Formats: sequence, C-alpha cells, structure tokens
Amino acid sequence: MGKSTRIQIINPNTSIKMTQAIGEAACQVAFADSEIIAQSPEEGVPSIEGHYDEAISAIGILELIKQGKEQQVDGHIIACFGDPALHAARELAHAPVIGIAEAAFHMASLIATKFSIVTTLPRTKIIAEHLLHQYGFERKCEKIRCIDLPVLALENDKQIAYEKLLESCQQAKMNDDIGAIVLGCGGMAEMADQVSAELEIPIIDGVRAAVKLIESLHHLGIKTSKWGDYDYPLEKL
Amino acid sequence: MGKSTRIQIINPNTSIKMTQAIGEAACQVAFADSEIIAQSPEEGVPSIEGHYDEAISAIGILELIKQGKEQQVDGHIIACFGDPALHAARELAHAPVIGIAEAAFHMASLIATKFSIVTTLPRTKIIAEHLLHQYGFERKCEKIRCIDLPVLALENDKQIAYEKLLESCQQAKMNDDIGAIVLGCGGMAEMADQVSAELEIPIIDGVRAAVKLIESLHHLGIKTSKWGDYDYPLEKL
Amino acid sequence: MGKSTRIQIINPNTSIKMTQAIGEAACQVAFADSEIIAQSPEEGVPSIEGHYDEAISAIGILELIKQGKEQQVDGHIIACFGDPALHAARELAHAPVIGIAEAAFHMASLIATKFSIVTTLPRTKIIAEHLLHQYGFERKCEKIRCIDLPVLALENDKQIAYEKLLESCQQAKMNDDIGAIVLGCGGMAEMADQVSAELEIPIIDGVRAAVKLIESLHHLGIKTSKWGDYDYPLEKL
Amino acid sequence: MGKSTRIQIINPNTSIKMTQAIGEAACQVAFADSEIIAQSPEEGVPSIEGHYDEAISAIGILELIKQGKEQQVDGHIIACFGDPALHAARELAHAPVIGIAEAAFHMASLIATKFSIVTTLPRTKIIAEHLLHQYGFERKCEKIRCIDLPVLALENDKQIAYEKLLESCQQAKMNDDIGAIVLGCGGMAEMADQVSAELEIPIIDGVRAAVKLIESLHHLGIKTSKWGDYDYPLEKL
Amino acid sequence: MGKSTRIQIINPNTSIKMTQAIGEAACQVAFADSEIIAQSPEEGVPSIEGHYDEAISAIGILELIKQGKEQQVDGHIIACFGDPALHAARELAHAPVIGIAEAAFHMASLIATKFSIVTTLPRTKIIAEHLLHQYGFERKCEKIRCIDLPVLALENDKQIAYEKLLESCQQAKMNDDIGAIVLGCGGMAEMADQVSAELEIPIIDGVRAAVKLIESLHHLGIKTSKWGDYDYPLEKL
Amino acid sequence: MGKSTRIQIINPNTSIKMTQAIGEAACQVAFADSEIIAQSPEEGVPSIEGHYDEAISAIGILELIKQGKEQQVDGHIIACFGDPALHAARELAHAPVIGIAEAAFHMASLIATKFSIVTTLPRTKIIAEHLLHQYGFERKCEKIRCIDLPVLALENDKQIAYEKLLESCQQAKMNDDIGAIVLGCGGMAEMADQVSAELEIPIIDGVRAAVKLIESLHHLGIKTSKWGDYDYPLEKL
Repeated sequence: MGKSTRIQIINPNTSIKMTQAIGEAACQVAFADSEIIAQSPEEGVPSIEGHYDEAISAIGILELIKQGKEQQVDGHIIACFGDPALHAARELAHAPVIGIAEAAFHMASLIATKFSIVTTLPRTKIIAEHLLHQYGFERKCEKIRCIDLPVLALENDKQIAYEKLLESCQQAKMNDDIGAIVLGCGGMAEMADQVSAELEIPIIDGVRAAVKLIESLHHLGIKTSKWGDYDYPLEKL
Repeated sequence: MGKSTRIQIINPNTSIKMTQAIGEAACQVAFADSEIIAQSPEEGVPSIEGHYDEAISAIGILELIKQGKEQQVDGHIIACFGDPALHAARELAHAPVIGIAEAAFHMASLIATKFSIVTTLPRTKIIAEHLLHQYGFERKCEKIRCIDLPVLALENDKQIAYEKLLESCQQAKMNDDIGAIVLGCGGMAEMADQVSAELEIPIIDGVRAAVKLIESLHHLGIKTSKWGDYDYPLEKL
Repeated sequence: MGKSTRIQIINPNTSIKMTQAIGEAACQVAFADSEIIAQSPEEGVPSIEGHYDEAISAIGILELIKQGKEQQVDGHIIACFGDPALHAARELAHAPVIGIAEAAFHMASLIATKFSIVTTLPRTKIIAEHLLHQYGFERKCEKIRCIDLPVLALENDKQIAYEKLLESCQQAKMNDDIGAIVLGCGGMAEMADQVSAELEIPIIDGVRAAVKLIESLHHLGIKTSKWGDYDYPLEKL
Repeated sequence: MGKSTRIQIINPNTSIKMTQAIGEAACQVAFADSEIIAQSPEEGVPSIEGHYDEAISAIGILELIKQGKEQQVDGHIIACFGDPALHAARELAHAPVIGIAEAAFHMASLIATKFSIVTTLPRTKIIAEHLLHQYGFERKCEKIRCIDLPVLALENDKQIAYEKLLESCQQAKMNDDIGAIVLGCGGMAEMADQVSAELEIPIIDGVRAAVKLIESLHHLGIKTSKWGDYDYPLEKL
Repeated sequence: MGKSTRIQIINPNTSIKMTQAIGEAACQVAFADSEIIAQSPEEGVPSIEGHYDEAISAIGILELIKQGKEQQVDGHIIACFGDPALHAARELAHAPVIGIAEAAFHMASLIATKFSIVTTLPRTKIIAEHLLHQYGFERKCEKIRCIDLPVLALENDKQIAYEKLLESCQQAKMNDDIGAIVLGCGGMAEMADQVSAELEIPIIDGVRAAVKLIESLHHLGIKTSKWGDYDYPLEKL
Repeated sequence: MGKSTRIQIINPNTSIKMTQAIGEAACQVAFADSEIIAQSPEEGVPSIEGHYDEAISAIGILELIKQGKEQQVDGHIIACFGDPALHAARELAHAPVIGIAEAAFHMASLIATKFSIVTTLPRTKIIAEHLLHQYGFERKCEKIRCIDLPVLALENDKQIAYEKLLESCQQAKMNDDIGAIVLGCGGMAEMADQVSAELEIPIIDGVRAAVKLIESLHHLGIKTSKWGDYDYPLEKL
C-alpha cells in the first residue's frame, strides 16, 4: 500500500489563524505522501458556539465540499466539534467525510471504556450530547466539562486557555472514572500534545483522529455509500 | 383569554403552491383572531428530500425567522417534516418555534400509545428516525412507511399521491398495531381530512398540530427559554 | 375556529380547596368560551403521595370520567402529577384525556432542550421517573428535585411551601444546565406565575398546559383513538 | 432451612374457576410445608383485558393484600399478567409481593438469552410492552404474540384455547430466535406442562415462577424494602 | 414438592478460605435436603479483579462445570460478581447456571425500585456496569460504590473490610435514593447479615440469592434451554 | 509521518489455513513498511461458534498477546468476530488492541447511517447483538443475517460459502434500508472484494478495518489507556 491521500480539512468558521493551526495539527500526523488542504469559507461566522452558528455554517461547508469534490480530493474533514452539515456533506461527496467529534469518539472508545469531553462554552454541551446520542457513544462518555471560554479566546488568550484546559482535564482525570479525554473544539488541537504530556492520560484530538480515519478509508477503498440515504441529492422535477 | 396570535408559518422550500396549501391548512384550525402568515424563502430548494436539502434550507428559514421577529409575530412554525434549523431558530427567536414533525409526534402520543409515520421517499426515513430518537418518541413510533413519491408529486399528481397515501395509511392501520398515523410531509396537509374520514383512524397533520401548539404557548405566556443553550446567538469578539 | 370547549378537570384527591385552586388556574388560561368543570371524587384519599394513593384514586377518577362522558364534555384532565389511571381513562372516554405530568413534559420540551422537575416528597420521585421513561422524556429531564413537604402542606402552609419551592427552583436554575422547570404537583399550580416572575426562567404548570392541549385537540377534531388498545373496555362474556 | 411459607395468591378477576386453577398450579410447585391461599376479590371484573380492567382491579387486590397482611402471610402474588397494583401492594405489605409477569420474565432470562410472550388479546400487548420496559427486559423479549381469544375463553373453550396456544408457541419457537416462551396470562397456567412437553422448549408460567420466588425471598429473610418509596403509605394530615 | 437439589458452587478464584466461606453462606440458606458442593479450580488466579482475571478464570470454571455435569448436579453457581463465563457455562450445562451478580440484581429488583452496588476496587466498576446493561438492570441501579480494597483483603483484614463496607453501605443508604444494596463480591457474603442488621435496609448477597434461584428452577423443572444459542457447543468438522 | 508498524493479528482458532488467509487480507491493506504477524494458538478450538468456544479461546489469545508484547509489536488485532478477550487483552497490553467486530462497526458507521451484518451460524447472532449493544452501535445495525454454514465451511466449501454469502448480502442490500454490509466472520475476509464488486454496496471486512485502525493509533501515538480499568492486571497479595 503506498497510495497518496489528498485530504480537504474544512474549518467551518472564518478564523484564518484557526484554519492554519488546524492544518498544522493535521500535517503532524498525516503521511508523508498525504496532502492536507486546510480551508475555511470566505464568508460565514468567526466562531461556532451554538445551534445558530452551526446552521449558518452549513452553506460554507457544503460549498467547500463541492470544490473539494471538483478537485478530486480523497476525503473531507469537517473540523468543528459539532460535526455541522455532516450528513449533508456525505450526500454531496463520494469520498469519505468525517467530523472531528465523531472521529474523536471512535478513537477514544478503542483505547478506554469511558471518556470525558472538555469543551468551550456551556451552551455547546447540548450539541455534544445530541451527537453522542445520535452516534451511540452516550454510554462511553461520562461527563462533558467546559472551560467556559469562547472559541476565539483559544487563539487570543492562549495561555489562559491552556491553563483552563489543563485544569478541566485534570479534574476529569481525577474525578470521572475515565481512561481518556476528548478535546471538544477544533481550536484546541494545538494544545493536545502538551496536555497529554503533562497529565499522562490519553488526550484525543478529533482533527488528528479524522486525518488518520480518512487515510484509512481511502487506503481501504471504502467510500461514502451511495446506496440509500447518502445517495447524491435528488435532481428536482 | 382572548389574546390574538400572529403565527408565521415557514415553508422551507420554494414551492409557492405548497406554501399556499400549508397556509390554508393552518387557517382551517387557527382561531378567528389568529393571523396566519405563510411564507417561503425567495431562494432555496424547490423541495426538501434529504440531508443536503435540509442543510441548505437553513439559511432561508433563519432569514425568515429574523423577519418574523422584527414583525413581532407570536410564534414561528417550520413546516417541513425534518424540522430543519429548529434549534437554531429557537436561538434567534424569543417567541416559541415549533417544527411540524415534533408537533405531530406530541399530538399523536396524547391520543394513542403507538403511531406509524407515512412519508414520501425512502431516503427521508432516516431523518424521521433521527428526530424520533432525539425527541424521545422512538418507542411510540412503530413503523415509518413511504409512498415512494417525491415531495413535489404531492402537488403535481394529486390523485396518484392521494391513492398511494391512502394505501400506505391503510396498511399501517391494519398491520402496525397502532392507534394513529402521522403524515410525514408538510405537502400532505391538505389530504389529512380525507384520509382520516376514509380510514376511521386519527390522522395527525403536523401543520395543524403546530398551529394549535403555538397558540397554546402564546396564551400560556410561555416563550422559548432564553436561559441556557437557547439564549440568543453570541456576539463575536 | 370558534368552537367552545367543555373541559372536565379531575383533581383525584378529596381536597376541595385544592380542587378550587386547580379550577382557578385552569380558568386563567382557558378561552372565554371554554367551560371548566373542576371536580374531585366524593370518597378517596386526601392527597396522593405514593403508589398506593395513586392506585386507590383510580376508582374515583374513572367514575368521574364516566360522568364527564355522560355530560358530553370535550376533554378530560387528570390533575395529579403521577397521571394516575390515564390509560384506563382513555379506554373509557372518546374525548381526549390528558394528565398534567405529560402535559407539562410536552410543553417544556417545546421551549427548552432540558428541564428539571420540582416535586413534593422524595418518595414520589420514582413515579415521575417511571412516567418520564414511559413517555420518552427521560433524556429531557435533568433532575427531579423535592421540596420535602407533603402535598397538603401546599394548601396549609402556603408561605413555607412557596419559599421552599422558590429555593428548589432557584437551585435547579443555577445547577442543572436546564432551560425550564416543571412543577411536580397539581397543588403548585397557583404558585407558578409568582415563581416564574421571580426567577426569570420558564416555569411549566401541568394544569394550565393540559387545558391548552385539550382545547387544541378539540379544535383539531382529534379524539382518543378507538382503534387499538384505547378501544372501549370489552364487554365480558 | 425448613421454614414454612404461607403464600397468598391473588387472582384479580372474579372468576372462581380461574382462581382454583391458579391455586392448583401453585400447589404443584410449592413445598410440602408451604401453604397456598388462592383468593379473588368478591367484587370486581370477571376478566382483565385492558388498562381499565387493570385500574379497576386495584381496589380488590389491595383489599386482599391488607387481609393477607393481617393473616401474616409470608408473601403475596398478584396473578394477572399485567402485574396490576404491584407497586401499591408493595407499599402496603412488608412481606414480599410478586407479579406473575415479572416472575416469568426473571425466570426466563435465567435460562435463555431471548424469549417471546404468548398472550391473549392484541389490546393487552401494550401492557406487556410497558412492563418489559419498566422492568428492563425489553431487550430480552423478541416478540409478543397473541392467540386472539379473551381471557375467559381459556376456561370456557379449553380445547380451542389449547390448540391456539400451542400453535402460537410453535410459531414463536420456529421463527423468533428465542430459547424460551413466557405464557402471558394467569389462566394459561394449567396448560404450561402440556405445551412444554409437546414443543420441547422451556415454557415459563408466571404463577409457578412467582411461588418459588416468594419462597426464596422468605427463606432468605428478604422483605419488601421499607426504606424509600416502598415505605408504608403516609398517614394524611 | 420434596425434591432434593445438588448444587455446585464454583468460586472461580483459588482462595480456599473464600471457597469455604462461600460454601457456608450457601449452606445457611439452602434447604435441608439440598447439597452444596463448593469448589474452586486447582489452578487459576487467587482473586478476580479485572477483565484479565475474569478471562483467565473461564477455563477453570468450565472445567468444573463439566465435572459437575458428570456428577449430575442439579444446578451450577458461578460465585464471582462479574459472572465470568456464564453464557459459556450455560452452553455446556443442561442444569441451570446462575451468576451471583445476576442473582443479586434479580432479587433486589423484586423488593425495591432502585439499588446501589458496593464492590471492591474501582477498576471492577466497569464490569458491573457492563453486566447491568447486558441484563437490563441499568435503570434499577443508582450507583456503584467501592470500598477500595482488593478482594483478598476481605479474607485477610476482615475488620477493616467490614468497617469500610459498612461505611459505604451507610452512604448508599443515606444518599442514593435506593431501597436495597447489592454486595458486589462473593467474598462479602459472610458479612451480609451483620451489615443488614446494623443498617436496617435490605442487603442482597448474590451467593445466597443464587442458591434459592437454583433450587427454584430445579423444583420448577426448568433447565437451561437447549433450543437456540445455549445449545451444546458444536462438534467441530 | 513515516513510522513503521508491527501488527500482531491473532486468529483465535487453530485453523492454519484461516490464519494465512487472514494474514493475507491484512497484508493487502497494510502499509509497505508495516509488518503483519499473523498467528494462531497452538492449542485451542478449530473454530469459534458460540459462547463456549469464545471463552475457551481466551487463554490462547492472551498468551499470544503476552508474546506480542515481549516482541514489542505496535498493535494487536483479535481476528474473531465476537471480539473474545478484548478487554482482558487491553489490560495486558500497552499497545492498542482492536477486535475485528468493533473495527468493522466503527468503519461502517463512518460511511453509512445503517448497516446489516452477515454472519455464519444463527447461534452466533446473540454474540454480535451483545457487542453492538455494549459498543453502542445497536441503532446503526438494522439486521443480523446468517448464511447458516459453520465457520470451517468457509475454508472447505469456498464456492458454496461464497454463493450463500452473496445471496445474504444481496437480500440485505435490497430489503434492509442500509448503506453498508459488515462481514460477520474473520474467515469471510478473503471474499470481501468479490462481494463488494458484484453488489455495488460497501462491504466492510473487520480484518482490513482493524489493520488501518491499529496503524492510525500507532501513528497518532495513542496507546491503550493505563489510567483506569485498562491498567495492567493487579499483582496478587
């Protein structure tokens, strides 16, 4: 097996700094012959912190999915922890599409019987909870914790953000009867290694996890199913 | 109690005929002093038949929600059976927002221990299933049946659509151990009475159900909670 | 729509003061042309605070349902938070029958993603939990809290009861990650507005909710299904 | 261990023939020094075939529980497959109380990974389903089948009833991927052995199962918990 | 009924002291004409405190099951709280086979609506949780508590073990909204009576519970189903 | 990233032909610089077709895991669809350990909303069902189908086995409302490509899926958590 993989990573918010950071995290784990194309929509929301932001971000995500498809990428990643527009993107694409929340959940459940999530604002907890439930990981996740900082603070106040993240992860490790911690925001990707080194418990970053899952599916020759409800959107009458 | 209610009904697809039919169904059950404002987005998809159509429709729905809010309507209805953008709309609005799928599920569960859903295309079944699960009605719904016609056929081939709908409902009644049938498409609203009369089993149309729920919440003075995750979208830094 | 609705509200305990208070709460939200008939059984338990009280109350409830049916009311409400004899009442009646617990759960889930319940005695928590589970709201309810006062104290020590209720609701608001609070006893109906005004979070009272749901079903022409397990009780051989 | 056990078996309907048959089935499996007291209420419903019959039967059941308690029986059995008034009876009693549905479910799950239920009328299926769900056996029960005969036909047309029961059990054995069959009516108790002998698959009769569970609890010295929600009914103010 | 029952109790670890204690607990509740054969494997693990210990213990358990079968015992008990090799043992045996965890869960749920478990080490909690879930008792168990002592400490430091057990049970009683406590280790069997006497809440010991369930099934003539997936292991080609 | 991965694949049965076939399937998808070490225990069962075979296979699997650990492999695969001894192996190992059933479930759920499983004998269905439930995929799996051939027939009667497999997969595709099919036996690995080519629906083989997941975890530097219940087995006192 020596197939190269072109991977489109879509940061659904318009923060270019975050797109770069996500792209860099992806590159760290991608194979030498994989190509990472990190993109964000030109117009949209600067950060995604609720149901509305998510719904609004769908247009930009799907537009980028179409572009990625034209460029014949081998897989698409939606790099926002709410996995916005995931099912819709799978209808558009034939190459596999993976959200970073699901990627992290899948990986965490392979190395621990339980995990906790550490995310940003309390109001986004319900989004993670809905996802856990839809995907079937609700019994694997012991607790959803928040650092109570907005997404963009991860870029703007890195030191404070890191300290709060570390503190929440430490509390999760000591109190939640878990074996791993899932980072609940794409913007936390760059802090994963440092937290992991300090706490000595596996820290799962969905961006990195998604890169390997896309490469895996591509090497297996498994694409998004076009039989059933992920078939291409219907032409209208 | 004699409070009038201004209700915005949003048909998320661009079919004007369907918007009118939905508006008429709503008017049939609204109070004399309620006002029904049936609207559809100027741009968007002509029909919603999958994850992609749903995601794309969110922009138009949310734009109309904003307009309705400016016009100080007392409640908003999203008249597509997948309840697209429902959580997002609740963040934007303070007045209550109701999707026709949830409206139908709630009403059906008040008069029968089990119901079946009859919807349009097989590929939309997963959307209904995800909703049943998220809302907690998965044990109340015995089966999701399809008439295997696209949404727009409900407008264009009314006779065939009616016959297929009647046949599916009849099969549900005879085979599914149920007490009620939920119509799985806003475009079926106008056929509800006729099917109900013919089959002698309660037929629940989400459009009508949603109108009464909005009026009820308005009269109770209960609005969408602004405490917690339905609070208004965050201003960005 | 201008159809009047005759609604029978059954307080399953024998406290006449509570029956009156429930009737008044109902009148506050009923339409001008609705008629509220608040009743309680002549014999029975003075308050319902456990499985035994509930089981014993069924006879009185069902006797009143029969009377209501003879008087051709348009809907029946069972105004005790355990929804006692609900399924049985639906077998007897053709008009819709609604319990105040289910009414509150349905309404709360339309305006918040999560709610907590504040009820009376700890021993009644299991009854609420069984209902949440049977109805499918177990994932919507975050916590069941108690004020640890018997039901009749709501009538006899109104001030203490109100203070304890307010305190529990306040704790729920601050600690439970919720958007609404459900009052877990018919006897709390008269305190709903005051708590709601003080706490600025939606407080759902099942009595008021049930009145609007009955009016809604009546206006929709939807009755208890007589197809299936809610059919009239069988004549015995 | 040589403790004798006095067991009150309550047939909640007024059919004396059925009470006798249930008592005889109980005696077949009770220990030599156990005493079986089979009783039915003087007034009540001749058969229990729905929610209403169940609710109405509670008074008679609870009256008999009180009598059994005064006579210091060591355990009570409620011999109707819907386990009516079970939680209420446990509040009244200190000795253990067991319903025949739960008894059968517990025993079946000890000797097979899955079972099917064969009961009487289709309208009673929802009662069994609610119980399976409340008790936690919903994943153990593959299917609920009906012989479509009323309860009293089990006494009046024994031959037809037996043939229909045998046929349903045979279909369950061949089609349901199960290891055992639960009889869904107290009136089927006397047919259990014959069906079992003919079909060579374990047939679980709740009456017999309940007798052994009561004897077991009695010998273990385990009584209904009086700590928590099964504490005695509250004295009213 | 006066049938004697020969019961094989398998302590899956190699601690002879524990085997004896388990045998004695069993004898306390067995009928006078029951015979208790308490056994442990000659080789194996000295205590079972995790997934690995459980998996390794299977060989010894199954070897003993075969011996018990040759000796024509009437039932087998696996006396380790993780119910190791239970399904496998049922394939081998025709006589009923019961694990002490499931036995305790079944009995507890007959006398209380909720129970907590008190077990040994935190790492074994996940095993109990998996069992609760597989058996369907996840909604009956409120909390799994640990005394944080290894299994063998129950034999070696009896006083300390008892004090910690008592403390945990006391906390469960006061804080968990439960009606009964399940002891989460075969080695706690001998302390059950003392804890129960001191705390005045039912304490369920799975060893004793299993003895009575085996006697019950034997007297009922119900054996492990040989129809379906518990059929004897297949002969290989 | 250019890290090589040494992967131990354990075929838990003693069929050398099957071990070779599994090793070959693994090699097809492994990276050029990955090393596949396909092994089977010297003693054990020739095929795994039930609970007993699984339990017995644990010793051999765990012995090989120890050997693999000494040889410092980077990951272990348990190549039997019941994922026998998976949790135990994770306690022993630090490198990641993956079962082929879980691998297939994870991959299938990334490219389809629903899948069906096609396995060998009906008696193994319950094993798959227990796994689906423990892992949280129970709502993703629509149906478990069987070809009704023993495992070894996959090696001995390849043509018949292939035809039956193809037929079952075809039925799943046409009737189950799914988007992918999971092969329910390690011995089917070699037929995956041919079935997939013929049916034009994604066919997921757990062996291949597990190889890529091990490589992914290795490249991510994520190992089995040693914090919590997957910590190394305890030294005994």
